[in-house]
Amino acid sequence: MDFIRQVFSIRFEYKVFFTAHLFDGSNDAFRSFIREGKEPGVVRKILFVLDNGFLQHHDGLVQQIKNYFKDEKGIRVIEEMVIVPGGEATKNSAEHLEKILEAVNEHGIDRHSFLVAIGGGSVLDVAGYAAAVAHRGLRHIRVPTTVLSQNDSGVGVKNGINYFNKKNFLGTFTPPVAVFNDSHFLTTLSDAEWRSGISEAVKVALIKDAAFFTWLEANAKRMVDRDMTTMQYQIRRCAELHLQHIAGADPFETGSSRPLDFGHWSAHKLEQLSDFTIRHGEAVAIGIALDTVYSFLSGRLKEEPMMRVLRLLKALGFPLTDRLLEVTDEKSPLLLGLNEFREHLGGRLTIMLLRGIGEGEEVHEVEPALVKEASEWIRKHSLVKA
Amino acid sequence: MDFIRQVFSIRFEYKVFFTAHLFDGSNDAFRSFIREGKEPGVVRKILFVLDNGFLQHHDGLVQQIKNYFKDEKGIRVIEEMVIVPGGEATKNSAEHLEKILEAVNEHGIDRHSFLVAIGGGSVLDVAGYAAAVAHRGLRHIRVPTTVLSQNDSGVGVKNGINYFNKKNFLGTFTPPVAVFNDSHFLTTLSDAEWRSGISEAVKVALIKDAAFFTWLEANAKRMVDRDMTTMQYQIRRCAELHLQHIAGADPFETGSSRPLDFGHWSAHKLEQLSDFTIRHGEAVAIGIALDTVYSFLSGRLKEEPMMRVLRLLKALGFPLTDRLLEVTDEKSPLLLGLNEFREHLGGRLTIMLLRGIGEGEEVHEVEPALVKEASEWIRKHSLVKA
Repeated sequence: MDFIRQVFSIRFEYKVFFTAHLFDGSNDAFRSFIREGKEPGVVRKILFVLDNGFLQHHDGLVQQIKNYFKDEKGIRVIEEMVIVPGGEATKNSAEHLEKILEAVNEHGIDRHSFLVAIGGGSVLDVAGYAAAVAHRGLRHIRVPTTVLSQNDSGVGVKNGINYFNKKNFLGTFTPPVAVFNDSHFLTTLSDAEWRSGISEAVKVALIKDAAFFTWLEANAKRMVDRDMTTMQYQIRRCAELHLQHIAGADPFETGSSRPLDFGHWSAHKLEQLSDFTIRHGEAVAIGIALDTVYSFLSGRLKEEPMMRVLRLLKALGFPLTDRLLEVTDEKSPLLLGLNEFREHLGGRLTIMLLRGIGEGEEVHEVEPALVKEASEWIRKHSLVKA
Repeated sequence: MDFIRQVFSIRFEYKVFFTAHLFDGSNDAFRSFIREGKEPGVVRKILFVLDNGFLQHHDGLVQQIKNYFKDEKGIRVIEEMVIVPGGEATKNSAEHLEKILEAVNEHGIDRHSFLVAIGGGSVLDVAGYAAAVAHRGLRHIRVPTTVLSQNDSGVGVKNGINYFNKKNFLGTFTPPVAVFNDSHFLTTLSDAEWRSGISEAVKVALIKDAAFFTWLEANAKRMVDRDMTTMQYQIRRCAELHLQHIAGADPFETGSSRPLDFGHWSAHKLEQLSDFTIRHGEAVAIGIALDTVYSFLSGRLKEEPMMRVLRLLKALGFPLTDRLLEVTDEKSPLLLGLNEFREHLGGRLTIMLLRGIGEGEEVHEVEPALVKEASEWIRKHSLVKA
């Protein structure tokens, strides 16, 4: 049959900057990024979307941003910034997406303008989605303000909102044009928020980098004690491994393999069961513990590395299981979560397990009886949350 | 400042097939495409979205599709097909988008399932948008059923819906996984529908391929007389030039240059002014005439090639102007359209004009007085619609 073959490649490039005091007048990084490659006579507009939860602790930020740009002739900051709630709530309806799109329309934000999102992962997700679909794509800059978004989701290429009560039912793979990680923004996090993003570092170390895992073991206490230099190294290395994985494999996830989802199948279910009162990072720690013990019980992983994983998670202050994941029969929510994960991925079930520290193995079958056993094993070994 | 540079490329590849009687049992092309690369044990689901305007003339199609797949064990056609209105109406609200998304949710269509859209450009646009954002992207197949969609928009990478009363305010650049052009589907088009897509061939010939323009001149009568072989050549060559342009330049339009929008700035305005009663293809013919005469009046184009363009458009049966584009003062809608086009593109105004047949020239300034003169020139030279 007659056909024309269409082939082309799109090159994506962006930098993840590590800085502090991003909108301090003396820090030129953000301004100079906006100026870059500007055509003469064109005024670049910037629409800011801000996380209300974050703003509570940084109430001078709006004014600081306006001052930061006040002498820039070629840059126009839209006075009226869009403020949305932080956390999963902002993704749970189309309301906040709609609010951002309205501002894009009202202020004439076009494909050469910037939409800058400052906040936690959920705010970046909804703002990133708005930026991806308005005018078929605005220039989107991410400024993640939590450990979890600075070391993981915020530096990646996904966005989305929940719809029909399904997590990330709507979304796209759309790389930002830049990411700015500001360590100063982390100083106002609660201890639980501060800690919760570290589980993604444990995850990526376990499947990609044994040396980083050893580093995490050695530095767990310093991180828990809120040593900023240590935390910054963790964030930078985790972000780097995350970015390397995206660039190296299948950035827009056309296949079934998702190694970065190690520990995530049960984590997603747990977040949903808890009505998102359990943080993503905490749920991931529990998911890592479960799949690590499953790896041991299924004969893939030795006892010693398993114990190292569980000890590290405990040292970081994570509970290792939750009563919501208790398996009583085959209709237990945890086991149903396995099927939902398959549906979410599409195609063949593909789950990452461990053969050793820094060495993953993808499997296409998971034994429900062994999942139950893993869940009970963790409980029995007195690693249970009080 | 410390940073990590993220760089990766995504390779997109799809075939545009030219066939007839796509869902005839003896035509295996579509089925074998769906079978390709299927993992063992996985059932591939297909959700069909159909253009109601098209279905009126092909009322056996739904049953034919079901029969076509009935012996395929690994393929499951969702019984309940989604039927949406044809034409711009289907893009003018989120209602039909929502209907498609609901079906995706209800039938568990995942990232490895197919969403197949059969219809004119508007239906492909809304279905393509749904496919691009549901689960961050389903496998999308386009089956364009009009000349305009088979030779132009339907083979390309854009989708979208109108929002806030703005054309394509929401949308993405997302290549389909395949396009099937079925010539048999064209036989039921009205004469006006049949003809209207040819203006995109005139456009692409003018900016890319003088030989194709000469071919169009020689074959105008045969196309108007509905000779299918001639029309098929036109569609194939136009699609080819369109695809070559996309692959060669800036597929996702990150810059300001849009050569394929030659003649389109006024066409968009005219469609809107006429409340979409003027077809896109007809508006494009009028837009081509205007920018061709502007090219002549601004000293870029000689009189003889200008007259060839106008004669070809007339021979194809297109009116060359419309009273809605009359310029009386600087607030006339046509002149406002210029600014809206700039806003739509974002950044610097960039308009394609002509230096000769097959030779375009991009300009960043358009003189309103000369636009007025061009509009009057066409009117005076008795080329006006009766």
